[in-house]
Amino acid sequence: MLLFFDSDIEANFQNFTFDKSESRHISKVLRKNVGSQITITNGKGLEWKGEITSILNQKVEAKKITSLKHSNKKKHIHLAVAPTKSNDRMEWLIEKVTEIGISSITPILCDHSERKIIRKERLIKIAISALKQSQQFFLPEINSMMTFKKYIKSISHPGLIAHCGKSSKIELKNYNWESEQIHLLIGPEGDFSLEEIKDAISAKLIPVSLGQQRLRTETASILGSHILLIKE
Amino acid sequence: MLLFFDSDIEANFQNFTFDKSESRHISKVLRKNVGSQITITNGKGLEWKGEITSILNQKVEAKKITSLKHSNKKKHIHLAVAPTKSNDRMEWLIEKVTEIGISSITPILCDHSERKIIRKERLIKIAISALKQSQQFFLPEINSMMTFKKYIKSISHPGLIAHCGKSSKIELKNYNWESEQIHLLIGPEGDFSLEEIKDAISAKLIPVSLGQQRLRTETASILGSHILLIKE
Repeated sequence: MLLFFDSDIEANFQNFTFDKSESRHISKVLRKNVGSQITITNGKGLEWKGEITSILNQKVEAKKITSLKHSNKKKHIHLAVAPTKSNDRMEWLIEKVTEIGISSITPILCDHSERKIIRKERLIKIAISALKQSQQFFLPEINSMMTFKKYIKSISHPGLIAHCGKSSKIELKNYNWESEQIHLLIGPEGDFSLEEIKDAISAKLIPVSLGQQRLRTETASILGSHILLIKE
Repeated sequence: MLLFFDSDIEANFQNFTFDKSESRHISKVLRKNVGSQITITNGKGLEWKGEITSILNQKVEAKKITSLKHSNKKKHIHLAVAPTKSNDRMEWLIEKVTEIGISSITPILCDHSERKIIRKERLIKIAISALKQSQQFFLPEINSMMTFKKYIKSISHPGLIAHCGKSSKIELKNYNWESEQIHLLIGPEGDFSLEEIKDAISAKLIPVSLGQQRLRTETASILGSHILLIKE
């Protein structure tokens, strides 16, 4: 299956015209012809199957064969993570958590954050590319950056905070996840500050450990999300 | 803790002299002085703690304070993976599986492999760097490339083969891991060939699934190793 993405496509569209850049990609790189089948998703569960009807003037057009609405997962992981200093590592993180299928990512600004600005559009582009590659139909929401304090005040579902401090924590692999939504907070390279951990506990977040190893921010994000997903 | 690596250091060394490049790193980048404490491992469980006694002529010397031999894990994961087409993805894979603590990595040459050569020395360098960063004392062994056929003949412990085919498989998360050693085989971008899967089953390997998503080679390697590790 060749999966494309367009945020505007809907189930009732009878025809679809690809933009110039995707059209060139389809005709020149993928070498598709009239009659080839393609699938398009809007990242909100739609699987729109069509057949290419024309390739003219750098525009590829398709007509609908069928459409299907996938039902969303019953359980949702919301990852809040302090962006890594290295852009590459942050992009890798976005790619991987999209591949494994989490619901949202919020970059958070922490006391020890070294990166204070993110390029949201670039991260969305990476998530779309990972969605297409891993053939999924739900694009994780990528939110704007938020301060740690604001984030912990904003959440209305159970939240877990993974930190490396010595205070009492439960092993994430032993945490039984019963709610529909869960928030997982992963800190920056220098960990959450003691004050942030205190504030999180006051806000009823549960401190968790990912094991004995000292994991990088992006590794902790993917492994933490993965533990929750396999216990879903 | 500032962790360094030297494959030759032993518990009974009373003094240690860093090579020129590491010496420069310690004195110029990390700005350590005489009296600073450092820790060195040989990647075989040794934790050698010392104190810098001199920084002269681009040579940093340390004398031993204590040494400790960590005992190895009781269970060992041996990952056999078809190297990804992209070098970057392969290097990430090595970094991440070192961070999470697997015992060995063998690049395998499969029917659908696009990358037929690896730079073993470069991969070892990346593993050492991840070992230091994640503060571990056991360096995974990075083996030379081997054909798939040769690999499955060489293994004497239980082996699992993760593939995307439709034939009967068990979910890796439901696999109970009782042996001391286990082999996990992850295929190339185009998956294992049907013949390889057949050969693996004849060789008593167990076909496993990592879930519904179509995961990239490096993602499957990391998540597969991680599932086994948390069930260790």
